[in-house]
Amino acid sequence: MEEIGVGMLGYAFMGKAHSNAFKKLAYMTWPPPLMPKLVGIAGRDTGAVGEAAERYGYDYATGDWRDLVADERIGLFDNGGPNSLHAEPTIAAAEAGKHVICEKPLGRDAGESYEIWQRVAATGVKHLCAFNYRFVPAVRLARELIEAGELGEIRHFRGRYLQDWADDATLDTWRFHPDEAGSGALGDIGTHVIDLGRFLNGEITSVSGLVKTFIPGRTVDDALEAAVEFENGSVGTIEGTRLALGRRNAFQWEINGSKGSLAFDMERLNELQVFRADGDRARGFKTVLVSETDHPFWEHWWPPGHIIGWGDTFVHELHHMLKAIADDTDVAPYGATFEDGYRASEVGDAILRSGASGERVQISYRG
Amino acid sequence: MEEIGVGMLGYAFMGKAHSNAFKKLAYMTWPPPLMPKLVGIAGRDTGAVGEAAERYGYDYATGDWRDLVADERIGLFDNGGPNSLHAEPTIAAAEAGKHVICEKPLGRDAGESYEIWQRVAATGVKHLCAFNYRFVPAVRLARELIEAGELGEIRHFRGRYLQDWADDATLDTWRFHPDEAGSGALGDIGTHVIDLGRFLNGEITSVSGLVKTFIPGRTVDDALEAAVEFENGSVGTIEGTRLALGRRNAFQWEINGSKGSLAFDMERLNELQVFRADGDRARGFKTVLVSETDHPFWEHWWPPGHIIGWGDTFVHELHHMLKAIADDTDVAPYGATFEDGYRASEVGDAILRSGASGERVQISYRG
Amino acid sequence: MEEIGVGMLGYAFMGKAHSNAFKKLAYMTWPPPLMPKLVGIAGRDTGAVGEAAERYGYDYATGDWRDLVADERIGLFDNGGPNSLHAEPTIAAAEAGKHVICEKPLGRDAGESYEIWQRVAATGVKHLCAFNYRFVPAVRLARELIEAGELGEIRHFRGRYLQDWADDATLDTWRFHPDEAGSGALGDIGTHVIDLGRFLNGEITSVSGLVKTFIPGRTVDDALEAAVEFENGSVGTIEGTRLALGRRNAFQWEINGSKGSLAFDMERLNELQVFRADGDRARGFKTVLVSETDHPFWEHWWPPGHIIGWGDTFVHELHHMLKAIADDTDVAPYGATFEDGYRASEVGDAILRSGASGERVQISYRG
Amino acid sequence: MEEIGVGMLGYAFMGKAHSNAFKKLAYMTWPPPLMPKLVGIAGRDTGAVGEAAERYGYDYATGDWRDLVADERIGLFDNGGPNSLHAEPTIAAAEAGKHVICEKPLGRDAGESYEIWQRVAATGVKHLCAFNYRFVPAVRLARELIEAGELGEIRHFRGRYLQDWADDATLDTWRFHPDEAGSGALGDIGTHVIDLGRFLNGEITSVSGLVKTFIPGRTVDDALEAAVEFENGSVGTIEGTRLALGRRNAFQWEINGSKGSLAFDMERLNELQVFRADGDRARGFKTVLVSETDHPFWEHWWPPGHIIGWGDTFVHELHHMLKAIADDTDVAPYGATFEDGYRASEVGDAILRSGASGERVQISYRG
Repeated sequence: MEEIGVGMLGYAFMGKAHSNAFKKLAYMTWPPPLMPKLVGIAGRDTGAVGEAAERYGYDYATGDWRDLVADERIGLFDNGGPNSLHAEPTIAAAEAGKHVICEKPLGRDAGESYEIWQRVAATGVKHLCAFNYRFVPAVRLARELIEAGELGEIRHFRGRYLQDWADDATLDTWRFHPDEAGSGALGDIGTHVIDLGRFLNGEITSVSGLVKTFIPGRTVDDALEAAVEFENGSVGTIEGTRLALGRRNAFQWEINGSKGSLAFDMERLNELQVFRADGDRARGFKTVLVSETDHPFWEHWWPPGHIIGWGDTFVHELHHMLKAIADDTDVAPYGATFEDGYRASEVGDAILRSGASGERVQISYRG
Repeated sequence: MEEIGVGMLGYAFMGKAHSNAFKKLAYMTWPPPLMPKLVGIAGRDTGAVGEAAERYGYDYATGDWRDLVADERIGLFDNGGPNSLHAEPTIAAAEAGKHVICEKPLGRDAGESYEIWQRVAATGVKHLCAFNYRFVPAVRLARELIEAGELGEIRHFRGRYLQDWADDATLDTWRFHPDEAGSGALGDIGTHVIDLGRFLNGEITSVSGLVKTFIPGRTVDDALEAAVEFENGSVGTIEGTRLALGRRNAFQWEINGSKGSLAFDMERLNELQVFRADGDRARGFKTVLVSETDHPFWEHWWPPGHIIGWGDTFVHELHHMLKAIADDTDVAPYGATFEDGYRASEVGDAILRSGASGERVQISYRG
Repeated sequence: MEEIGVGMLGYAFMGKAHSNAFKKLAYMTWPPPLMPKLVGIAGRDTGAVGEAAERYGYDYATGDWRDLVADERIGLFDNGGPNSLHAEPTIAAAEAGKHVICEKPLGRDAGESYEIWQRVAATGVKHLCAFNYRFVPAVRLARELIEAGELGEIRHFRGRYLQDWADDATLDTWRFHPDEAGSGALGDIGTHVIDLGRFLNGEITSVSGLVKTFIPGRTVDDALEAAVEFENGSVGTIEGTRLALGRRNAFQWEINGSKGSLAFDMERLNELQVFRADGDRARGFKTVLVSETDHPFWEHWWPPGHIIGWGDTFVHELHHMLKAIADDTDVAPYGATFEDGYRASEVGDAILRSGASGERVQISYRG
Repeated sequence: MEEIGVGMLGYAFMGKAHSNAFKKLAYMTWPPPLMPKLVGIAGRDTGAVGEAAERYGYDYATGDWRDLVADERIGLFDNGGPNSLHAEPTIAAAEAGKHVICEKPLGRDAGESYEIWQRVAATGVKHLCAFNYRFVPAVRLARELIEAGELGEIRHFRGRYLQDWADDATLDTWRFHPDEAGSGALGDIGTHVIDLGRFLNGEITSVSGLVKTFIPGRTVDDALEAAVEFENGSVGTIEGTRLALGRRNAFQWEINGSKGSLAFDMERLNELQVFRADGDRARGFKTVLVSETDHPFWEHWWPPGHIIGWGDTFVHELHHMLKAIADDTDVAPYGATFEDGYRASEVGDAILRSGASGERVQISYRG
């Protein structure tokens, strides 16, 4: 089986999630498109990165990501570092001929995201922006139902990502530092809403909204609220907050079309709510437990009803990337490319500008 | 028991709902503050209004609402007619010394609503704008919990009223005629969201949003989307659509504060979701079946767990109005006054203006 | 409109529920089959019964139910008294030529129930045993779907009625006195499960089970548990308890057939869960909000999605009885007759016998 | 890090589930108590077992489980084969000094289960019967809440395991062959209900019930229904069926005590419903998303709200076994020992005997 060497930047939350996925896909998606070989892992805390190498089975740990870029054995560079470390290493790895994965948000703002995209695209490597929620089986099923025309003409998308972990004024993390994170809830979770809005419902053309910081002393946004228009004529809302007490990971969205509706909540990520206006006297939303043999990604898993977890979405995502590399096929449209990463940033910036100016912002995308 | 004569304008949806409530409160809220006596009912279709009089037990039917205004036996005028018939009869009844109830939206726009409020307030009669959802037990309980400080400082209100009955291009009703209705989903259901937003979370200070019409040939809005700011510093969204297929009467809202959260769906109107950040290891939202002996309005009903219906919210509302009349107490803050009706219209108009101009509208209230 | 005089025995929980329903059906089920005229109400506490007469509008109150039986104006005798007062007044009323309604359980045991049934049937009057849950729209819809063959061959019925109000050793009510109640949870709520089991799935042929008392000093059962067989070959369970803390009125049942399944919970009585094995890729239970214009009983109510309450089931039930009287049609099969009341008692007694003997009891029904 | 060699019998459903868990615990439960080294895997289909060895990384594959027993490098023998292959290999492995894991049901009947237990216990090795649902975080949390007295005195346990995959008369698997499986739904899923009943609520003392076969030509039971008594005085039901259409893996249970209640559904295995009778005006069941840092097993996973999957329960289970081996601690009470496996079989046999005789069976446990 052909191998591909993996170099990982970051060992904490995303480093763990991606490392687990590389290891797990090696046997759960049997046979994998390419057998990932974990070559090197980089991070600032050399003690921690050394332990991560041992834990996940990387051949070596390093305090300098340039070692990964320089390593000939590495064919895939996976960037799970903080946002401020997205641009330089990712571009360098691509320019060294490595395929690249970068966590979202791609850059700290649209300009940086555009730069990453353009520089990487110019190299010809495969690039994936790790919007992993595209790889939730229920989300993919939603996309397939929409593509098949089951919803008819879409009229509404309303998405909100509600978390509550940031309700602690004493908490410190790079996610609260504008220079490292770019923005707050907007880049962290708002971009997920924007990306799934685009994935399921197409391009966003305008936003009217605002961001808000509640916690004293915090310099990034805690929440965002926007009314949006899509290219297909539908309208809706995009919201995100890290201060919705009681909501841990409630990325909820609903789509209404002229023939039916879909609804979803990430806290019950194995379920999709499906309504069809088919004249059935028994009228209502179906709670579909997305775990059937003919459901997306399910060939890799268990008998129906035996649900998967959040971490397993990365298995699907990285499998998709390996397949694109192995078969030289496009990452898009089911995976998010760096262009998708850039476009999500453009929408995010538009929300910021709308908040500052009080005006609805018509979005124009570069490139 | 002291009686009060009731004159009803309208015999269809709201006429039925209010007539039922007057009849039912007479024994369910025993003893009622005043015993309603159904005196006269007015409507344009004399056949239908005649049947309504027989059906609900009004002494007489009339094709001219002025007969009700002129009737000395009538002490309470209840206006459940189309929006274009709100202003003149309501003002006339008040100026004839009758207490008045008027369905929402109070007027077809903020100007008309203001006029109704001012003219009626000048007479000194009691006035109630029939935002009946204030009288859902779960909604009142939410208000009581908030007043008691259980949510702490509020950070978010997100409300959406989703229906789907208007997805029929052949359908005709006064609700689709701008001259009779004023606006579409905005005045019909958007005002409910605005009113409960205000009821639960205080004054709305700005809106950024838009309205949208999807059905060809229709001249009122099918949907509205807005990002909003409240006087207390919280932010959120207000949405309404009559084209969310599969949602029949899904008026859903959620409030997040610094100590807890609440959530609600009108399709399960007997339930309130309650989250408290109290450090309990068993952390999560409680599904409270609002039917306990110490819950709002429940002294009138059944043993706990024996749920009430949508129509019963009017029993509470009209009981509240009769009590205000009997005891000469304020309709506010638990009931909506005409000032509340006006303020909801002001917010609605601001959404329209924001949609037209593309700008965030800072709302200033008259009076 | 033709009238029928009503005499009511009982003014408390069931007296209130039935009186409300008679008053409400007079205009909500317009035109009613017969216009109920509330003539007299009887009860032991003359102060309370006098107030009830005033409250609900009965012409008179009496401490002696025999006054009702003797009253020529009364054509329908409705017995909402304690179980020990079911037999004698009901039989006397029927023998006086009045149609009769009797609350469940019909008698305190199968023998008494049989006696009531036989004596009343011999008179030729209409008789209805007030298993009101047959008149929940979702339950009737379930019956219609089953009759239409949508579930195929039924394999399972599992029903449980869970309440928690009896968890109080200091509480006293006739429901805890064997001489007045007959049994405890068994007769009170277990009979509801038995009746809906029979209504939806046909005759019960055997039971293996037990009853149990937990509260010290109590002499009626707090709970019942049984494994059951039905005549159609299906098997399942029947349970009831008044000690399931947190469950207020959770009468939950599920039916599984060879083509589909249904599930229900009385705490959400407006909803029916419907599963069909139709090969749809979107596979799952539908949450049907039973409130469409083509749904059972819904012609009397509101636009879809505007839910009804527990008390409204009695409106449907009494309307059904009035229609049977007016049209001289059978109360069965959609209403429960006294034969149904007897059969439910027979099953209940079988559970008691099985509990005492430890043996599965094959049930034989008397004639 | 100290290693332990693993020999696996079986490569299909359970072989995959256990192999995945051994691989995943090696880094997710960092550091693992012992580092599992996958030495050999055995199965009847040599082609398939060879591929499994390659897929999961076993050093070798074999068609004869005796090779595993004879392999000195193997310290832990994991039996995921069909029920008829539980006894001989498991006993042989234990007698060869290897620690043993055996899938449920331990034996095909209580006699065989007893034999396995006794023979293995005599060797002094660690033994675990793979009732993996004890290792669902919500189930363990339930156990901890009960142990802490939060439910008070338990009154009811009602458990049902509903699946629907067996609704296909053409389907063939060893699970339908009495000689290989022992029983049908009873041994397959009924034992899970029995085990969690015992785990959460203690010993079962009597059963009254039956089993039933619906599919023509099938010679094992499709369903079981039983009323049960527990040693602590509580009563309830145990049910299982592989013919509940629409239910894929719905292992649902509810426990009611004198201070509170708990409820659970395996299709939403990350959630526990918790009710406490604490006098709170906001009264109801909490939906606890069991994913907090202080929740069972959660130190191994993700930030709160990022749910795990069914397969991850095996990670916890095998980690528990490795820890018992490494530290020479007891597998009980949180893990199921072979004595637990035997006792579950004893209850299962009692249901069969009750079904055959029609009598309630008082259970006496051997040893």
